[in-house]
Amino acid sequence: MLGLMQDWPLLIHTIMDHASRYHGTQEIVSRTVEGPVHRYTYADCAKRARALADAVNTKLGIGAGDIVATMAWNGYRHLEIWYGLMGLGAVVHTLNPRLFADQLDYIVNHAEDKYIFLELSFIAQMEALQDKLPTVKGFIIMTDRAHMPETSLRNPICYEELIAAGDNTFAWPKLDEQQACGICYTSGTTGNPKGVVYSQRSHVLHAMAICAGDALALKSTDVVMPVVPMFHANAWSLAFSVPMAGAKMVMPGAKMDGASIYELLDQEKVTVTAGVPTVWLMLLHHLEKHPELKLDHLERALIGGSACPEAMMAAFEKKYDTKVVHAWGMTEMSPIGSIGNRSGATADLDAEAWWPLQLKQGRPPFTVEMEITDDQGQVLPNDGKTFGHLVVRGAATAREYYKGEGGKILDDKGYFDTGDVATIDAYGFMQITDRAKDVIKSGGEWISSIDLENAAVGHPAVAEAAVIGITHPKWDERPLLVLVKKPGAEVSKEEVLGFLKDKVVKWWLPDDVVFVEEIPHTATGKISKLTLRQQFAGYVLPGAEAAE
Amino acid sequence: MLGLMQDWPLLIHTIMDHASRYHGTQEIVSRTVEGPVHRYTYADCAKRARALADAVNTKLGIGAGDIVATMAWNGYRHLEIWYGLMGLGAVVHTLNPRLFADQLDYIVNHAEDKYIFLELSFIAQMEALQDKLPTVKGFIIMTDRAHMPETSLRNPICYEELIAAGDNTFAWPKLDEQQACGICYTSGTTGNPKGVVYSQRSHVLHAMAICAGDALALKSTDVVMPVVPMFHANAWSLAFSVPMAGAKMVMPGAKMDGASIYELLDQEKVTVTAGVPTVWLMLLHHLEKHPELKLDHLERALIGGSACPEAMMAAFEKKYDTKVVHAWGMTEMSPIGSIGNRSGATADLDAEAWWPLQLKQGRPPFTVEMEITDDQGQVLPNDGKTFGHLVVRGAATAREYYKGEGGKILDDKGYFDTGDVATIDAYGFMQITDRAKDVIKSGGEWISSIDLENAAVGHPAVAEAAVIGITHPKWDERPLLVLVKKPGAEVSKEEVLGFLKDKVVKWWLPDDVVFVEEIPHTATGKISKLTLRQQFAGYVLPGAEAAE
Repeated sequence: MLGLMQDWPLLIHTIMDHASRYHGTQEIVSRTVEGPVHRYTYADCAKRARALADAVNTKLGIGAGDIVATMAWNGYRHLEIWYGLMGLGAVVHTLNPRLFADQLDYIVNHAEDKYIFLELSFIAQMEALQDKLPTVKGFIIMTDRAHMPETSLRNPICYEELIAAGDNTFAWPKLDEQQACGICYTSGTTGNPKGVVYSQRSHVLHAMAICAGDALALKSTDVVMPVVPMFHANAWSLAFSVPMAGAKMVMPGAKMDGASIYELLDQEKVTVTAGVPTVWLMLLHHLEKHPELKLDHLERALIGGSACPEAMMAAFEKKYDTKVVHAWGMTEMSPIGSIGNRSGATADLDAEAWWPLQLKQGRPPFTVEMEITDDQGQVLPNDGKTFGHLVVRGAATAREYYKGEGGKILDDKGYFDTGDVATIDAYGFMQITDRAKDVIKSGGEWISSIDLENAAVGHPAVAEAAVIGITHPKWDERPLLVLVKKPGAEVSKEEVLGFLKDKVVKWWLPDDVVFVEEIPHTATGKISKLTLRQQFAGYVLPGAEAAE
Repeated sequence: MLGLMQDWPLLIHTIMDHASRYHGTQEIVSRTVEGPVHRYTYADCAKRARALADAVNTKLGIGAGDIVATMAWNGYRHLEIWYGLMGLGAVVHTLNPRLFADQLDYIVNHAEDKYIFLELSFIAQMEALQDKLPTVKGFIIMTDRAHMPETSLRNPICYEELIAAGDNTFAWPKLDEQQACGICYTSGTTGNPKGVVYSQRSHVLHAMAICAGDALALKSTDVVMPVVPMFHANAWSLAFSVPMAGAKMVMPGAKMDGASIYELLDQEKVTVTAGVPTVWLMLLHHLEKHPELKLDHLERALIGGSACPEAMMAAFEKKYDTKVVHAWGMTEMSPIGSIGNRSGATADLDAEAWWPLQLKQGRPPFTVEMEITDDQGQVLPNDGKTFGHLVVRGAATAREYYKGEGGKILDDKGYFDTGDVATIDAYGFMQITDRAKDVIKSGGEWISSIDLENAAVGHPAVAEAAVIGITHPKWDERPLLVLVKKPGAEVSKEEVLGFLKDKVVKWWLPDDVVFVEEIPHTATGKISKLTLRQQFAGYVLPGAEAAE
């Protein structure tokens, strides 16, 4: 027996329909690449999205199922492209301009992008790349005629001229809610990037889950600035959930330095913002340099992408009276997997008891299921101590990559392995303890490289620390601690081990400590454990030979 | 091109799964019919729901698609029945015990209910009815062995014995999200009651829409008491949205008098509650009698079912510092259609400018679309003055009634006519001005009977007022004002018309005023316009004959 309720498919255009009907006068404020701050409303955005959909459809032949790329900052035109193209049933492929040329070339060709929308910032980058992109029929430059550059790009199209040719009463086609609407490639550390293909349904459900009172609780009275870029894991859903909530939207464009971010936070009275720790580090530096500045309007800062350092969280909360909401997710999860709000059970914890929980990555919103498992897939206890493979399932989690890359990615129960290692405590709060490939497997037990590194950098003479597993004849692997000393500081192996003694359990203590001039980093500034492992390939730990 | 996201159907059991995994220690507090207040947790509820599902499946043969009725108050056992049976794929039919016997008999037979779960309060009522209910195989009495009554009910089953026989690790079957999970009959004023059949999907989407920050913004740190019964339009989704949010739940059982409601609000530290104006009237009377009492914890009272009187709203807001959230909905909408929170555009209105907006029924949450139309189905402007048929569309709105009763109920654009007449203002706030059948159609224009009544009761000598349309040879219909005077008060027709003169536009002024001893009411206390129209059938308005 089936229900007798209306067929109301979960389609992206319903989000902008809602925003323009019930919050039509609400502003979208964008810092543009051309210079000025641009202001208009959801009602304007909705009309221009329709005009764009009509124009790309009739002038460029783009329709349902066509993949079209964007290389753009957070701004109103980028938003119009998302809603216009997704409303049409096309698939928006967000290109991360920070990728290396060979990665960009690979993903554009893999996705067979038909057109690329790009901002003025990226003309030169794209000119250098275009000859390797045979599927791309033309480049739509996101500006008006007055700002159109001299360019060698083939078939350059002026965005404002294109949109002017469209009908802003264009009627959205009826689509299947399973229709693809977006594709985003993961920049995997091994192998080629793999494409995650979102559906209209998954994005709408994800935005609804994020809007929930117990998740981000976005209200139409909020002013939200997504600093996290739309090309980075869908701006953590904010391009969907903010219009869904009818909140005012502030888009920072290309300028993410402390002064520019502060200016928008202050002038636009932003109440909620979201971004990676690097951005907030720049903002906090700016605030420290200008002690007269305050964060008068900012109520909450959503911090994710990598773990929020304790000092940063403390600065926001204690110095600027801004609540930090720690979050975690990944491209394969649309992306949000957990949010660190207080829950009913943790509401009565005092500040001291709550603090270590707030430093964790949080708990899943409704529509996300999360477990930790051992190497055999057995579910491990949620005791806050045991750590295991973090596996997830839900309404907005990938079931396979585009064109089947990477093969089967779900286990028999339908869970996706995140590649992270984590604990989950009795309150349901999850904490990432390591990447699965970085965890040290010693005598069948696991040692978290991140926990050891965090403990080691607590020593006053240590500037940076990295821990990798070294093959050991008896224990399979044992930890090696690699350290960079602070300029002018001195410390010995014995002193470091002595310092760690009461900070980690005994069997976690590194078997050796090595001092180096520099620890290798990836392009995004993370420690490159891969390079480090190559540097220390064949390293023999003290006592390891004797054990053989 | 379809998305490649996981298949995660929207099923009712995922709500209780989420509550028990992430808010397992959160309490459900219920006032029982047996007497004591019962307390347990979401983890307990989830287990017992599984045990019940297993028991009804194996012992009673209830499975997917079977319709099973409940006649019960808001309490933990009723919640277990909903989650247990819906999780199994069965369809829960909530019976309103206040219905007349012949209506109950009609709907049980129309739905062909297989079993009826009932609370001790309703034994006698059901004994009198059972012989007319041939499809019902047995009656499950919601109590334990010690409280089992002597009863003539055929096949009486003890609830606690039944649940004790079930396996509390029972695995939920995989269901289609379009599977029916609930049926609720509308008590239409004309014709037989008609069944609205909810799907698993529609209830989950509706609960997600209600949980949104811009809708009810339920948080796991809230304590929510649904006073509105689960048999009345699904307790306004709270049986789903409160566990989805992980909030503590307080269930008032059978006692809805002011003292009992106050006791739970106070002792359980309720932050959010919901109910019809009658209940709040009783609470406010109780508070007035005991001036030492305060609503210390209550932040918000959701008021719906019928319009919240201005004096009630003022008492809550100004005297008890409790925010009133006005809401509107109907059984066909699962039920919530609009919620009266401030929006971004109305955030800066001062208290005086906001007040008349707060008295309106509010604006739709995401997933609800709303329009007003004229008799020809043309969309009317949202100017706050023009009123028209209120039509709605959405993810949790009915497309047809059970067994096709009432025929086609959607227009060509897929909208359902609510039978209400309303205005929508430029902010998107909707206000019910009349029932469509009560509106007076005068010369092609509409006159709101409710607006006229509200104006008339403003006169100090008037106790109650009702307006009906009387056939008129020239204008089709003209308003007749029927009045009950206050005891000992005197007022003439001319005085009343003079009083109304500057309160309504001239052509709205009633053609006649009639004084009566009593105005007829329905069983639920509303003015019975139907009876009134019968009483005044053939009434000739002054000047009407002359016009012929």
